Amino acid sequence: MSLLIVGSVAFDAIETPFGKTDKIIGGAATYISLSANYFTKKSNLVAVVGGDFPKEYIELLRNHGVNTDGLQIKETEKTFFWSGKYHNDLNTRDTLVTELNVLGTFDPIVPSQYQSCDYLMLGNLAPKVQSTLINRLTKRPKLIVMDTMNFWMDIAMDDLKETIGMVDVLSINDEEARQLSGDYSLLKAAKKIMAMGPKTLIIKKGEHGALLFQGDQVFFSPALPLEEVFDPTGAGDTFAGGFIGYLASTDDISFENMKRAIVYGSALASCCVEKFGTENLLNLSETDIKDRVNEFVKLATFKL
Amino acid sequence: MSLLIVGSVAFDAIETPFGKTDKIIGGAATYISLSANYFTKKSNLVAVVGGDFPKEYIELLRNHGVNTDGLQIKETEKTFFWSGKYHNDLNTRDTLVTELNVLGTFDPIVPSQYQSCDYLMLGNLAPKVQSTLINRLTKRPKLIVMDTMNFWMDIAMDDLKETIGMVDVLSINDEEARQLSGDYSLLKAAKKIMAMGPKTLIIKKGEHGALLFQGDQVFFSPALPLEEVFDPTGAGDTFAGGFIGYLASTDDISFENMKRAIVYGSALASCCVEKFGTENLLNLSETDIKDRVNEFVKLATFKL
Repeated sequence: MSLLIVGSVAFDAIETPFGKTDKIIGGAATYISLSANYFTKKSNLVAVVGGDFPKEYIELLRNHGVNTDGLQIKETEKTFFWSGKYHNDLNTRDTLVTELNVLGTFDPIVPSQYQSCDYLMLGNLAPKVQSTLINRLTKRPKLIVMDTMNFWMDIAMDDLKETIGMVDVLSINDEEARQLSGDYSLLKAAKKIMAMGPKTLIIKKGEHGALLFQGDQVFFSPALPLEEVFDPTGAGDTFAGGFIGYLASTDDISFENMKRAIVYGSALASCCVEKFGTENLLNLSETDIKDRVNEFVKLATFKL
Repeated sequence: MSLLIVGSVAFDAIETPFGKTDKIIGGAATYISLSANYFTKKSNLVAVVGGDFPKEYIELLRNHGVNTDGLQIKETEKTFFWSGKYHNDLNTRDTLVTELNVLGTFDPIVPSQYQSCDYLMLGNLAPKVQSTLINRLTKRPKLIVMDTMNFWMDIAMDDLKETIGMVDVLSINDEEARQLSGDYSLLKAAKKIMAMGPKTLIIKKGEHGALLFQGDQVFFSPALPLEEVFDPTGAGDTFAGGFIGYLASTDDISFENMKRAIVYGSALASCCVEKFGTENLLNLSETDIKDRVNEFVKLATFKL
């Protein structure tokens, strides 16, 4: 089924204990699109870049099955730029530069040929932009998944809660779930957050895996212990892309299928962090993904 | 099969955001024994207390299937005492008091009737005491499981490594695995630690679950998301007691059975933390444990 993705397409400059990059392609929607493409060939992008964004990067997205009709190019402006430096444990990072540029005035215009989309993935953006996009759709998608972050909880909580109330699945990390709910227990936090609207909640715990909540059901997917994490940038977006890509390709939004989608998303994220930026997302084979998913099965399977 | 447990039997005074206790029964061997008792009725304790230790507490252990022939009572001395205060997140705590008392000169004497034990659990103690006990056994047990903590890494690393080299299974937490190996990646850390001797390594991650390593095999058991954690004291020991108790009762040390043992240990630990001290370990029914284990199955099960 067709998938609509909205989010940032950006320049990232990343420094980790293992090296640093110049400005490379980044942004939530980039990682989501590349990851989802391993499952669905029908993704449609709504995003904005400046005149400085290389044509080759747009070509790269197109070559990975992304319809870029909805990618606005503001020729006289500059692309969103983020630069960060990871600490030695790779779990924490300092943001060195955030230049909003074109993202500061982003108006998410939906091309008419996108209007029939079945699955909608809202990548991290100002919640007002996310809700504007939902309101511009003439038909409600079968499933709306929203990713966000603590930044919006700090500066736009009212907008954020309004948008959260409009979606089916919310994806946030454990600290964000605690901040949003005011509860330390993730089980209590999940109940409060689901009462805000989303029937389903994903709580990402980074190297500790991810929890999926729906009503009274809970599922936990571990993260794969890795020899080397090279660059965690985009892991959460890659996870989200795998999750919604798998759901869109199977067109099954049951809890059982969401469990599988969580495992596929986790598998893709574990591949992503093994190289810098989007590098490892560009050329995975079907076998690579199958093997990785089988590692998750081995890791989590026991019989009483 | 028969189980030998060595470790501290102590007084604890605990303060959490939910309340505080006077001196209550505590100590690694206490939690291990009470937890193991749900699986094996044949556990033998080697430990030491002072003359101030109430007879009722010894009776309590006996009533839970623990042979206390090896519990030394130093009438003129005082029992080991620990007091701690947990922070609001319950993941960190300050130690308020540590009075070693009888534990400072503990000589682990093994009663002759314990000599034929098949399974040995070394609860957290000075590594020299742990190795002394191993050396005093006339027959090597089928499986030796050792628990320890960062404290010994700080002050007795050589002794610790020597003892680690004598055991089959080591159980430590993630930060301790990193400290012991010097590696941040738990996969790399596990390889280095297994090269020190133990064929099997358990890395406990508290509210994030536990990893089981053996050769190239890895298994992950989640921790159950709980509404309320009341008091984390003894959770790791309860986990270890469930683990070795399950192995001793089934007398199967295959990797597949160790996976089950990890799940049973995690289930017992999740029960332990729901009340103060040992309270919730005293009266669990078979159904309680079965129900709890089934929650782990539901939490972790997915089908591709």
